[in-house]
Amino acid sequence: MELPSQVKLVEVGPRDGLQNQPVMVSIAHRVELIERLAQCGFSAIETGSLVSAQRIPQMANSEIVYQHIHQRPNAEYIMLVANQQGLARAISCQAKTIAVFCAATDAFSLNNIHCSIDVSMASIQTIVGQAKEKNMAVRGYISCVLGCPFQGVVQIDKVCELAAKLYEYGCYEVSLGDTIGVGTPLQVIELLSAVKKVIPTDTIAVHFHDTYGQSLANIFAALQTGIHIIDSSVSGLGGCPFAPGASGNISSEDLVFMLNGLSIKTGVNLDELIATSWFIADLLDRPPTAKVTLANAAKH
Amino acid sequence: MELPSQVKLVEVGPRDGLQNQPVMVSIAHRVELIERLAQCGFSAIETGSLVSAQRIPQMANSEIVYQHIHQRPNAEYIMLVANQQGLARAISCQAKTIAVFCAATDAFSLNNIHCSIDVSMASIQTIVGQAKEKNMAVRGYISCVLGCPFQGVVQIDKVCELAAKLYEYGCYEVSLGDTIGVGTPLQVIELLSAVKKVIPTDTIAVHFHDTYGQSLANIFAALQTGIHIIDSSVSGLGGCPFAPGASGNISSEDLVFMLNGLSIKTGVNLDELIATSWFIADLLDRPPTAKVTLANAAKH
Repeated sequence: MELPSQVKLVEVGPRDGLQNQPVMVSIAHRVELIERLAQCGFSAIETGSLVSAQRIPQMANSEIVYQHIHQRPNAEYIMLVANQQGLARAISCQAKTIAVFCAATDAFSLNNIHCSIDVSMASIQTIVGQAKEKNMAVRGYISCVLGCPFQGVVQIDKVCELAAKLYEYGCYEVSLGDTIGVGTPLQVIELLSAVKKVIPTDTIAVHFHDTYGQSLANIFAALQTGIHIIDSSVSGLGGCPFAPGASGNISSEDLVFMLNGLSIKTGVNLDELIATSWFIADLLDRPPTAKVTLANAAKH
Repeated sequence: MELPSQVKLVEVGPRDGLQNQPVMVSIAHRVELIERLAQCGFSAIETGSLVSAQRIPQMANSEIVYQHIHQRPNAEYIMLVANQQGLARAISCQAKTIAVFCAATDAFSLNNIHCSIDVSMASIQTIVGQAKEKNMAVRGYISCVLGCPFQGVVQIDKVCELAAKLYEYGCYEVSLGDTIGVGTPLQVIELLSAVKKVIPTDTIAVHFHDTYGQSLANIFAALQTGIHIIDSSVSGLGGCPFAPGASGNISSEDLVFMLNGLSIKTGVNLDELIATSWFIADLLDRPPTAKVTLANAAKH
C-alpha cells in the first residue's frame, strides 16, 4: 500500500470550528488560538470569516484578529470570503490568502447562500479574478461533495465540474467538503479518483466532518488515492450551522495520531496540539471531541 | 480494492460493554438488551461473563441472564470464562459457546489475571479441552495485540504464536483485541498479514477499542486484508477496567453505517440498532458514544 510520505494539514478550528460554537471567544483569545496552532506546527490556518456579523457573530472582527497575528514566513493564514463585500474587507486588511466556497447541489446552495450554483460560481469567478489582481492567493471549497442534507445523493460529475472551474478561475487548492459527514471510504475513493482526472492531485484537499464517525476511515481511504492535503479542526470543533444534524470536523488530534502511526510527516507536535485543544475547550466550556485529547486528560 | 462481500459482527455490548459501566443493569434489562440485539440481526452476541461477582459486579448472575434468553437457531450466545470455576458454571448452565482470553504481554497478563502468559495458556488449553468434551464451542481472545499499557510495544510474533496455540487448542475463532486502542491502520495490516499466515483468515476476528479514535480506520484497513469477523459494541459501550485510559469499543452503529456504505452485508438493521442504543444509553444514564446514534437523536 502506497501512502504519501508527508501531508499538509489545514487547521480550520479558528474559523470553521469557532463559527458554530454557542460561546463567543474574545479577539485576544482567537489570536492566541491561532498563534498556538502555528506554534504546534500548522503551516496553514483558517483565521476567520469576512461575513455578516449579524449572521455569524462568532466571526465578528475577523480583520482585527488577522491584523494581530504575527505571521510566520511561508505559512498560509486564510480568511473566508463570501461575497464582494467580504473581498473588499479582505483587501482593506491586506489579507494574503482568502477562501471562497460553493456547494455541490443547488438545494444546499439556495439554503446556505440563497442563490443557485451558477449564480454563486459567477460571483466566485469575479472574486477570484479581483483577488488575484491584488496578488492574493485563493483557496476554493466545495460543500456537500458526498451527500446533501436537502437533496441526498450528489453527482460526482457535478463535483468534478466545480473543482475544474475553481481551479481554472485560479484557486491554488480545492477543498472537498463532506459537510454532513455521510460519506464512506469507497465513496471517497470513487470521488477522488474522478476529481484527480480533472485537477492535479497536489491541489486537492479533503475536508471531512465526523457527524457519523466516518471521517478518519475516509481520510485513510483518501491517503490511499495519494491525496496529501487534509483539513482538520483542533479539538474536533466545528459543524455547519446551515446543515441540519452536522456536527464536528475531524479533530486534528485524532488525525495527527493516525498520521504519526502511519509514519506520515505532518510537522505538527501532538503534545502541544493536545494542550492547545484543552485551552480552547476550556474557553468554550465544553469537552474536546478529540478522543486522543480525552485520553490525555493528564495534559489538561 | 477488494473487500469482503459480507461480514459477521460479534456484538459484545452486553458483556464487554456493560462490565465497565458504573450503573448496574438489572437481569431483566440485560436479557432485554440481548433479545433486542438478536432482533436487530446480530447472529453472535456476548451475553455475560462467568467471573467473580466481587470483582466485576456488573456481570453477576450471568447464568440467569443466559437461561432467560430465547436462543435463535444458528446464533452464537457467548459466555466469557476466566478459569476452571467459570467453566464449571458454564457447564452447569448448559452454555453452548464460551470465550477464553489471554494477553499478548506478560505485563498485562500479570496485571489483569495475575499470572504469566505461559501459565494462562496452560489453563486455557485445559479449559478448551474440557469444554470441547462437553461439545461446547470456544472463542479465543488475545488482548493488547497492538500495544500494552504497561510495556508499550507488542511483538507480532508473540501474537502469532498465541493465535496459533488458541487455534490448535480448538478455538473456532481468535479475536485480536486492541485493548487500549493505540493501533493505526498500517500496523493493523502488518499484524493481520502475519496472523493470516498461521491461522485461517476465516477464523480471525478484530476487536478494536476507540480510545484514540482510530478503530473505524483500523477496521477499514482490516477489511482490506480480507478479515470479515468484527467485534463491536452497541452504543460504543466498553473499555477495560484493568487498562489505564482505555475507553469504549468501536460502536456497532458507526461500524454498520460504514459497512452499509461499503455495500458489505451485515444482516443488521441500523434503525433498530440505533433504537437499541438509545434504550441501553437511557438505562445507563449516559449518552451513546456512537456518532451515528447521536446524529439520530430523533429516533430517541
